[in-house]
Amino acid sequence: MNELVFVGLGLNDEKGISLKGLEETKNADYVFMETYTSLMPDFSIERFEALCDRKIHVVSRNDLEDKNGTVILEAAKKGKAVFLVPGDPFIATTHVTMRIDAEKHGIKTRIVHGTSIMSAIISLSGLHNYTFGKTVTVPFPENFSETPYNVIAQNKQVGLHTLCLLDLKANEKSFLSINQAIKMLLEVEEKNKKGIITPETPVVGIARAGSYSPILKADFLKDLAAYDFGEPPYSLIFPGELHFMEVASLIAFAEAPVGFRRLAK
Amino acid sequence: MNELVFVGLGLNDEKGISLKGLEETKNADYVFMETYTSLMPDFSIERFEALCDRKIHVVSRNDLEDKNGTVILEAAKKGKAVFLVPGDPFIATTHVTMRIDAEKHGIKTRIVHGTSIMSAIISLSGLHNYTFGKTVTVPFPENFSETPYNVIAQNKQVGLHTLCLLDLKANEKSFLSINQAIKMLLEVEEKNKKGIITPETPVVGIARAGSYSPILKADFLKDLAAYDFGEPPYSLIFPGELHFMEVASLIAFAEAPVGFRRLAK
Repeated sequence: MNELVFVGLGLNDEKGISLKGLEETKNADYVFMETYTSLMPDFSIERFEALCDRKIHVVSRNDLEDKNGTVILEAAKKGKAVFLVPGDPFIATTHVTMRIDAEKHGIKTRIVHGTSIMSAIISLSGLHNYTFGKTVTVPFPENFSETPYNVIAQNKQVGLHTLCLLDLKANEKSFLSINQAIKMLLEVEEKNKKGIITPETPVVGIARAGSYSPILKADFLKDLAAYDFGEPPYSLIFPGELHFMEVASLIAFAEAPVGFRRLAK
Repeated sequence: MNELVFVGLGLNDEKGISLKGLEETKNADYVFMETYTSLMPDFSIERFEALCDRKIHVVSRNDLEDKNGTVILEAAKKGKAVFLVPGDPFIATTHVTMRIDAEKHGIKTRIVHGTSIMSAIISLSGLHNYTFGKTVTVPFPENFSETPYNVIAQNKQVGLHTLCLLDLKANEKSFLSINQAIKMLLEVEEKNKKGIITPETPVVGIARAGSYSPILKADFLKDLAAYDFGEPPYSLIFPGELHFMEVASLIAFAEAPVGFRRLAK
């Protein structure tokens, strides 16, 4: 059967995939995978090949973005192709174009969802999903942008939390650190002086959500800078208004200082 | 070892769980599960018990909310307890209290994340994750509220999409339909006359995200009412500003009418 199945690998390692995702991979004629949109810190291609009993073809950003995923589409014209993507296949929208192209070529597509870093971070934090506003990525200093600051400001104005993913180049092992991100946001504050991000601003730093040793640390900005988050990937949450149960979660699971208690609405 | 592991079941059926989630369940001394926060349309407890080779104790809302999950905490004091939750364990914040209580009792807790309906819907739609604002649940008519309308209005004002989950009572097989939700939103419009939700408003209806036969239909509100979405669960997306790639996705995968082309920014 000619088809292209996008399968989410979930988080961290080769056991993040769902049972149905593994099943689809096992009975595929061709299996492709990309490793550049996210970091899966403990993933081993060799172990995954043993699990699914298939040879995995790793495709590059160049294969997908410059060559429009032709190698995958050609395989899907000959049989069942599975394309493995870290997290959920379409939470990063990188691969939507290929899915549209596939359908134009008469190739049927399906999705097997995976655990996304977005929901894992929110879930780990104990903060209320309904209180998150727009999400934003903080870029590397060479791509400096005021957008993250403006998104945090816009969300805070209406009491909402902001999830900030910190940029990464997974294949080059390059990751924006929590300290670098904070520094960039403080620079924008220095310029705008809106009082959105100050040394007294509460913030939650997260490292390796979805791994066996996630790190979660809530603190005031001035005190978070000294914290050692260990290995990547990293993210930050800037809380808006905090419900007392959210504060209780941050104290229980994110080592929030007792000063957080006075933030509860 | 005394511990309580919250394991996400992911979506739809017993194969939505991750390999690591199944592994944790297989080597648990006690396995509990709740079935009331979400519907997993094709889940069979018997098949799942066969998969993990464990007896599963289904706990009720009463066990968890009125009796504070004592039955689970008592088990976790005697050995390793796994608590299975549809989707991701803490995307609905229902179980955060039990996690805090467990830690207070000196029981170590861990999380194995699962695929959440939130990210699956966004992923299915092809809309950009970064363009979603606050999420909201549309309640049953007996709990009528203007909040969903106000959240959609607030998001639209800044160009953001709104994901609306439609309320459900999974154990009573009671589900708010897409038509009922639209009717309620139009009633609030009738009162407020802000022009946020009109017959010409573009909207995307989704049924059974994460299943083998998800339904996705984009249309103008007046035309969506006649569409048959089949079985539950249901959700709605009210788009804010649409990028031309998002419109292309809705046309390719959600049968959006050609009139959607003029919505692209």
